[in-house]
Amino acid sequence: MSKDKSLKKQRQALCEDLLEAQFELQQANLGPVLLLVSGNDLAGKAELIYTFYEWLDNRYLNTRAFTLPRGIERKMPRLWRYWRSLPPAGTLGFYLGSWYHQPLIQLSRGRMSDSRFKTQMEQITRFENQLVAEGVTLLKLWLHLDDDQTQNYPPREQQKQYDSLAMREWGEFSTTEYAKVREAAKRMSELTSTAIAPWIQVPSSDAEQRDLHVGKLLLKAMENKLRGKEEAPKGHEWQASKSNRLDKLDYGRELKKDVYKRELERYQQRLRDLTRHPSFAKGSLLLVFEGSDAAGKGGTIRRITHCLDPRILRVHGTRAPTEEERSQPYLLRFWRRIPAPGNVVVFDRSYYGRVLVERVEGFCSKTRWRQAYAEINDFEAQLHKAGTQVIKFWLAITPEEQLARFEAREKTPTKRYKLTDEDWRNRDKWPDYVSAMNDMVENTATPHAPWHVLPSTDKRYARIQALRIVCETLQKRLKQS
Amino acid sequence: MSKDKSLKKQRQALCEDLLEAQFELQQANLGPVLLLVSGNDLAGKAELIYTFYEWLDNRYLNTRAFTLPRGIERKMPRLWRYWRSLPPAGTLGFYLGSWYHQPLIQLSRGRMSDSRFKTQMEQITRFENQLVAEGVTLLKLWLHLDDDQTQNYPPREQQKQYDSLAMREWGEFSTTEYAKVREAAKRMSELTSTAIAPWIQVPSSDAEQRDLHVGKLLLKAMENKLRGKEEAPKGHEWQASKSNRLDKLDYGRELKKDVYKRELERYQQRLRDLTRHPSFAKGSLLLVFEGSDAAGKGGTIRRITHCLDPRILRVHGTRAPTEEERSQPYLLRFWRRIPAPGNVVVFDRSYYGRVLVERVEGFCSKTRWRQAYAEINDFEAQLHKAGTQVIKFWLAITPEEQLARFEAREKTPTKRYKLTDEDWRNRDKWPDYVSAMNDMVENTATPHAPWHVLPSTDKRYARIQALRIVCETLQKRLKQS
Repeated sequence: MSKDKSLKKQRQALCEDLLEAQFELQQANLGPVLLLVSGNDLAGKAELIYTFYEWLDNRYLNTRAFTLPRGIERKMPRLWRYWRSLPPAGTLGFYLGSWYHQPLIQLSRGRMSDSRFKTQMEQITRFENQLVAEGVTLLKLWLHLDDDQTQNYPPREQQKQYDSLAMREWGEFSTTEYAKVREAAKRMSELTSTAIAPWIQVPSSDAEQRDLHVGKLLLKAMENKLRGKEEAPKGHEWQASKSNRLDKLDYGRELKKDVYKRELERYQQRLRDLTRHPSFAKGSLLLVFEGSDAAGKGGTIRRITHCLDPRILRVHGTRAPTEEERSQPYLLRFWRRIPAPGNVVVFDRSYYGRVLVERVEGFCSKTRWRQAYAEINDFEAQLHKAGTQVIKFWLAITPEEQLARFEAREKTPTKRYKLTDEDWRNRDKWPDYVSAMNDMVENTATPHAPWHVLPSTDKRYARIQALRIVCETLQKRLKQS
Repeated sequence: MSKDKSLKKQRQALCEDLLEAQFELQQANLGPVLLLVSGNDLAGKAELIYTFYEWLDNRYLNTRAFTLPRGIERKMPRLWRYWRSLPPAGTLGFYLGSWYHQPLIQLSRGRMSDSRFKTQMEQITRFENQLVAEGVTLLKLWLHLDDDQTQNYPPREQQKQYDSLAMREWGEFSTTEYAKVREAAKRMSELTSTAIAPWIQVPSSDAEQRDLHVGKLLLKAMENKLRGKEEAPKGHEWQASKSNRLDKLDYGRELKKDVYKRELERYQQRLRDLTRHPSFAKGSLLLVFEGSDAAGKGGTIRRITHCLDPRILRVHGTRAPTEEERSQPYLLRFWRRIPAPGNVVVFDRSYYGRVLVERVEGFCSKTRWRQAYAEINDFEAQLHKAGTQVIKFWLAITPEEQLARFEAREKTPTKRYKLTDEDWRNRDKWPDYVSAMNDMVENTATPHAPWHVLPSTDKRYARIQALRIVCETLQKRLKQS
């Protein structure tokens, strides 16, 4: 058999296996497989992706190409645009220009210090660990050409046809620049080749061999995924809390009605003024409300939102994830809801569900909720860096108070809807929720996103405290800006 | 009882009823209730919405405020931004600045002719009819002040506090301008007060009375909705097809392998060149593929997409709607997927599902699929106007050919996945699908979005025809631009 014929046969067999695996992946609705295609600009990155559009079922392919951040992207956390455009479960994602592209170019052009590059690579590693832990598969490919080939400029005819597209956007490089890019890529690979997502060098001087090579890598990745043979990131730094914060609260704190009315008006006016301060629009505000059922979250939120412009406000009630959401990384739906500059987002229950209800009810594995503390801290740190003020509240009542409120709700026709069977079931697990709450505060109270635990037996007291804290935090921030 | 006390009692009772209705609406997951709040700028539009943020459960409220279209919005169909931001089922949507705002201001300022205004109002009426037919409730409110009150400038202290926000964005009006706005509003109301979504005047000189009034309207709207007492738009212009287009096709058309290879290469190169033409990026391309199962849609699509830059391409396989999608207007998921300028979207099955599978399988009412022809034509006309070239293909095979292909698929391991029980079931309804196909072409073949019915017994023939048609249509359009 001639070499050509043997290649053709190989390709045909591979193509059939890929189609079959792609179909199974789609049926099983497993987390997406992402192919990050980086490398020399003459190595045929675009050409490779064209091949897969010929081989595979186009309905389940997603190509992403990120160049410089534009518009709102520049004002949001750096990884936001990658989070929000993650391909859905059951599909393949091709990245021409991934989260590595910008730092790589900047480092190679001497526009970024090595230490900043390192920081970004660490952030990317945490991001990738989280994706993999949530069922995403990463294939990070570096298409490699030998030295003499990169000097062979302009590129060969056929590659030119495809690569002209790539070059148009990425800018053309001289040979000296290639050397610098390769240098930067080496550093990148050192810093981000983890056990779960290593960089793979693909020799790319022969286009056909390159495509076959990548096709086989992709097939193997899909097959491993389908057989549950993937490696998951290990390790989770967290500390079990030794004290019970809820015991120490003074549940007797209260506010007389006339004092409450006066204070309410005062703080609402103040909050209104603060959100109209010209500097307010430079950053944004994220309020997180957690607490036992019937602790008074809704009423407190209403007292705050009532004085905010509805056009800059979103209140999200966090419920159990939908089927589609369950097939996506946990934090994705929260990433999608973070406030843009000048906006206020309120979470009535939040991403802390992972370390509260999901932990207590066993909806997620022990490993995963233990890893979640660091992931959440990382999330909030990115928000903070992008100018979002995060303020977190835990409204606390005693089990006796909760019982009294449940019973009162049962008797009030217009409040009955607030009480479900689940609420009664959750009550049985009170001690578990107390542990979870304490561990949560222990592991996620940070200087830039502190927890405020408010005794809420007297709703008026809790409401004024929450308003006061929001006002004071905001005022401090506006002064600094 | 003093007047004040009676008002307070009324308000409290109303508030409880509203909360209860809001809860039921959310539980029943019925289409959203949209409150369009228009009117005099001093009448307290923003203030009214603040009140509802105090009264209602904030988690199920969505406020939308549209000012001038920005960025990509200016390049997409005019109604696109309203479609894509429709609030989810089970919630309330407040519109400060709805689809009426821009035309109203432009007419009042003499920047739009009456005939263009009329055209836009007709388009809006069709949009609203479609929303209501799909389960959305519309409350269109005009907050009204008497003449002497509008002259009372600057506004009263309390209103100022809220309305300053509104005015900052909408621009301040002089008294003469108010008269012009009122004139324009009268015309708007004449043209768009339909039986299913009339304009309602709300006297607004007394803020408290105004809020109670709107609260009662909202309560009634929610209650009618919960009791299924809403009126649906009537009428549907369509024509049953008298001829069978599928009978007349020449199923014997075929292409020899060597001719096919030559033509394939030629047309792919041509399409590649056409999509790189500088004018291509000004408009966009939408390809719709419909046809019997096993007619060869996937293979034809792959021959086309293979020569397109993956970064400007999306292929959507249209499947049965998810639960969430079923709770939204039918066309919404397709509105969300229309191509941006410079992009190509391919639908492998499409919004024509409504008049094909949904009609045949009884997934939608007779009234609704009959109304769908006009709705789809309207959708495509809006796309056309915004610069999207729509090309629609029906790949046709005979029932005998389909049977042969099904049997072949059963025997080929790598193609088995393409065959499901549903495919066999659909075969039983062949005559129904033939009628549906003919009615579809009869009612939706338009000069700007024609149907191309291609005999597909020989796949090679069909592929080359499709490529040829795409190339020729594109070439014609690029010449015109």
